[in-house]
Amino acid sequence: MKATQPISYREIDITGGFWKEQQARSRAVTMPAVLARFRETGRFDAARCEPHWPEGKKPHFFWDSDLAKWLESAAYLLQKEPDPVLEQAAEELIAHIEASQWADGYYNIYFTAVEPKGRWQNRDHHELYCAGHLIEAAVAYYEATGRRRLLDCMLKYAAHIEKTFMTDGAAAFETPGHEELELALVKLWRCTGDARWLRLSQWFVERRGRCAGETAAMPDWQRPSYNQSHLPVREQRSAEGHAVRALYLYCAMADLAMESGDAGLRAACEALFENITEKRMYITGGIGSSHCGEAFTMDYDLPNETAYSETCAAIALALFCRRMSALEPDARYADTAERAIYNGVLSGVSEDGAAFFYENPLELRPALRRKDASVTRGERFPLTRRQRMFSCACCPPNLTRLVASFGDFLFTRDETTLYVHHYAGAKSEQIEMTTEYPRDGLVRLRLRGMAGRQAALRVPGWCESYHCDKPGSAVRGYYYIHVDSADFTVTLRLDMPPRLIYANPLLCGNIGRAAVTRGPVVYCLESVDNGENLRALSIPAKASFSGDFDALECDGHRLEGASGALYSPKPPKTLPQRLRFLPYHRFANRGECEMAVWLRVS
Amino acid sequence: MKATQPISYREIDITGGFWKEQQARSRAVTMPAVLARFRETGRFDAARCEPHWPEGKKPHFFWDSDLAKWLESAAYLLQKEPDPVLEQAAEELIAHIEASQWADGYYNIYFTAVEPKGRWQNRDHHELYCAGHLIEAAVAYYEATGRRRLLDCMLKYAAHIEKTFMTDGAAAFETPGHEELELALVKLWRCTGDARWLRLSQWFVERRGRCAGETAAMPDWQRPSYNQSHLPVREQRSAEGHAVRALYLYCAMADLAMESGDAGLRAACEALFENITEKRMYITGGIGSSHCGEAFTMDYDLPNETAYSETCAAIALALFCRRMSALEPDARYADTAERAIYNGVLSGVSEDGAAFFYENPLELRPALRRKDASVTRGERFPLTRRQRMFSCACCPPNLTRLVASFGDFLFTRDETTLYVHHYAGAKSEQIEMTTEYPRDGLVRLRLRGMAGRQAALRVPGWCESYHCDKPGSAVRGYYYIHVDSADFTVTLRLDMPPRLIYANPLLCGNIGRAAVTRGPVVYCLESVDNGENLRALSIPAKASFSGDFDALECDGHRLEGASGALYSPKPPKTLPQRLRFLPYHRFANRGECEMAVWLRVS
Repeated sequence: MKATQPISYREIDITGGFWKEQQARSRAVTMPAVLARFRETGRFDAARCEPHWPEGKKPHFFWDSDLAKWLESAAYLLQKEPDPVLEQAAEELIAHIEASQWADGYYNIYFTAVEPKGRWQNRDHHELYCAGHLIEAAVAYYEATGRRRLLDCMLKYAAHIEKTFMTDGAAAFETPGHEELELALVKLWRCTGDARWLRLSQWFVERRGRCAGETAAMPDWQRPSYNQSHLPVREQRSAEGHAVRALYLYCAMADLAMESGDAGLRAACEALFENITEKRMYITGGIGSSHCGEAFTMDYDLPNETAYSETCAAIALALFCRRMSALEPDARYADTAERAIYNGVLSGVSEDGAAFFYENPLELRPALRRKDASVTRGERFPLTRRQRMFSCACCPPNLTRLVASFGDFLFTRDETTLYVHHYAGAKSEQIEMTTEYPRDGLVRLRLRGMAGRQAALRVPGWCESYHCDKPGSAVRGYYYIHVDSADFTVTLRLDMPPRLIYANPLLCGNIGRAAVTRGPVVYCLESVDNGENLRALSIPAKASFSGDFDALECDGHRLEGASGALYSPKPPKTLPQRLRFLPYHRFANRGECEMAVWLRVS
Repeated sequence: MKATQPISYREIDITGGFWKEQQARSRAVTMPAVLARFRETGRFDAARCEPHWPEGKKPHFFWDSDLAKWLESAAYLLQKEPDPVLEQAAEELIAHIEASQWADGYYNIYFTAVEPKGRWQNRDHHELYCAGHLIEAAVAYYEATGRRRLLDCMLKYAAHIEKTFMTDGAAAFETPGHEELELALVKLWRCTGDARWLRLSQWFVERRGRCAGETAAMPDWQRPSYNQSHLPVREQRSAEGHAVRALYLYCAMADLAMESGDAGLRAACEALFENITEKRMYITGGIGSSHCGEAFTMDYDLPNETAYSETCAAIALALFCRRMSALEPDARYADTAERAIYNGVLSGVSEDGAAFFYENPLELRPALRRKDASVTRGERFPLTRRQRMFSCACCPPNLTRLVASFGDFLFTRDETTLYVHHYAGAKSEQIEMTTEYPRDGLVRLRLRGMAGRQAALRVPGWCESYHCDKPGSAVRGYYYIHVDSADFTVTLRLDMPPRLIYANPLLCGNIGRAAVTRGPVVYCLESVDNGENLRALSIPAKASFSGDFDALECDGHRLEGASGALYSPKPPKTLPQRLRFLPYHRFANRGECEMAVWLRVS
């Protein structure tokens, strides 16, 4: 099957509904908050690469990537709306970068300001990762504003990388320790049309897992699988190691499969997708269950309380799925993207837009964090309060760029068909979509000048009943209809009653339990609504729900000890209790409290 | 209420039933196995304190205690039966100790052979702990054999300790970092009648928690509560820190309360007992849920899979309860002792008597141990196979001494009453007890020459119905009957049908679950009998059991995924499955497999 072509966010305006609110908040609150933190923590000024820095503000070797993701977000925002303050900050940052770039094209804050002799010596020090994010930012900024300054810098840098790694083999390692550059080079190729960047991306992707010297030099606590170097990528069939690295790699693999039609890369992508979604993913789309290595562990090992499930990893999963959707219109891909986006991604930012979670557990019990540190059994429990400050700041600007470029997710097309992968209030020259999705499942689509083509509307996997006012046929989760007029309107109603979702019993932490969902949104309980000891609560299998998107309610039960005894032949008492659920992505916005996604079915 | 007097194991022969088998196996297999390991690992010869040692056999600062517990066990065995091989080894060891004791009375392998200038400098290096075990061994050996050689050495050592700590204050610390000496000194006082040892014990107990300098010097990862130094002992109300240390301290507190009638110490002991049994103890009598610090954590924090629940800690709990039983005939104490002994203690030794568990978890999932070490989330899972070799060898000789001296647990007496705390086939001059307990609950007791007194037979807390062929009255778990003839026989039948026990819902890992028990014995499931993924199994609340002590069976269910999907709106299928349980203390004897104590109630 031939791949479909993406339709860029640049052609799509988000005009209403859920995503307009997300974008407005991100623009008004999150972007300035992130910039303010970057200035406060010295990141912003560090881009000048000066060999002295204020106390406590020594540059870290991943700061470039933080700045680059913020700049990429700024590009997306500026493309839609002028914003002099934002633009000035972006230009200032670009000027810093331009002024500090080495004559040979190299740019890296840490390895210019702090350790200039350390260039290309340590695979684990993120130079190529930072370069990738800078290239993504440069492409985005150029495409958004038409200004080439950063793009030219990055073309020079890319040429330097090509020479150092591909031509001369002059670095101490061969492939990035943290993948990202590979997908950025595909963007650079698409932006410039220069095939050398595609070749360089291919070169990095194909070399991975074939350089014995690289993996031998890894620190003890890592394994080659930590950065997916355990096998040539075409042979990889299970998602291993650091989850963000893994998914950025898979993004590039999918990109290359799309560009080249390479069946081997595509088969690997499909197998990796299946391994993740059938064995290694939280119901929230969170991936990477272990904080050690921020990594995948093994099939069905998805603990709730100690889930790492980094915001960036859920974002990376969504980005991978977006590519897979373009490669093949099978609704499983967009289903997984929206599982991640509406749950494990958006949970990363607070309701006010200015505080963040890096980890997104599926259960919080604050009491555990109060345990004497000397007896924590080596366990590490996620934070229970969102953070305004952060030392590792990868997630906040990753959130802003995803939200600002959400339009990228909506559509792809080929000669015959417009594919509608996601639903949002949106408008382009030919397309107008009106919906409150995911608040409800009603979608109105108006297409102009597309008579004779097809529209393929995704029917999400969670949707058990739907109605379309135009005849059509459903194939692999897309409902295909014939566009029979130059001004064509179709209405799709996806029914989204609240329902219980059960985990595979091999996911042994959730046996006998269910999660409440409505459409793509996973719900949770918080103790502020339901009282302490959420694990004592249960829900009937045939629960009858009231409420709406913001809060669902149903009758349930609470177990209470028959006595104060620790162990008793008397079963605990079962008391009726009204249960109140809120969307998982809105947890931890009302002070520290318990939270749980899964609850016992009674 | 006045305390009752213990009846020593020396007066009691174990003559049949469960305990005769335990003792026979311990004598024939475990004792020689432990001695062989001690010889192989260099421990035995290290008692000579030579400043050179074979490679890899550098003495550790707790080796004295390992040897001392073995020697104490040997004493108990030699008191019952001559054994030239055992006796020779014991005498050899005693000769080593005698020959290596310093002129001033000091004896410690590590601080003689390895670091002779380090004497009494480091509170955490177990010198006083080792001294305590050596004193216990010396008392046991003297009382068993009448030979004073080791006792004289230890009297000299005790005098040195008294001078160093109480008289001169010449050590770098004031109280033992690991309690044990305190209870040993009470034994020394009872053996010798010399009140200075009782005073020295009191001095150490009362100083604890009052020496600011000591706790300030503790390593970072410890807290003063780690060795119960956070408060004066009389003010302690919750069980904190290293569980073995804590319980050895509480043993000494109970001993001192008994000797002095001190109400403050007794109140502390009662409160600590209640805190443990109502909030901090596994159903197996295991205590100390965290491997970090081998410690208590907080109320209701009793995870199954990562339970530490050290064999020695369960032994220490039984020893504390034995003292509390003597202090006050309230069946709660002996109930807890037998909960520990028949479950978390005996689980520490393999069926063949030669392999051991240090940790006694309530759930084993071997797959978790196969997880790549780089992604274990810092978790540490207990061993799944019993070990024949060990570096920290405290548990095996602690088991042998408990088993060999089990007679100590059975009876206490006062002017009017013989208290029967535990049931075993046993015989003394006046008492003959016949029973297969805990295989069944039938106990026949014959008392000679005790006309006019009372017998008080414990009715365990787990027992819901019983029958006695003599009239009597039950008070606080003891059934008091009048002994009306010089040759008096009474038969007690304790009904022990298998039943489900529920955990308090505050113990949130076990909500909705139950454990199968029969009498004092907790049962478990193993995957070798029940198939993999034990968490998928459930038991009906009204389960009907067949089988006997060795194996119980009932009809239950297994959940199986409705599809291969990770998450599904279809509930898993419920399939019938016959469940097979074995006593928890016999788990992990048939190869590596899953084990679970708690299972869902369906």
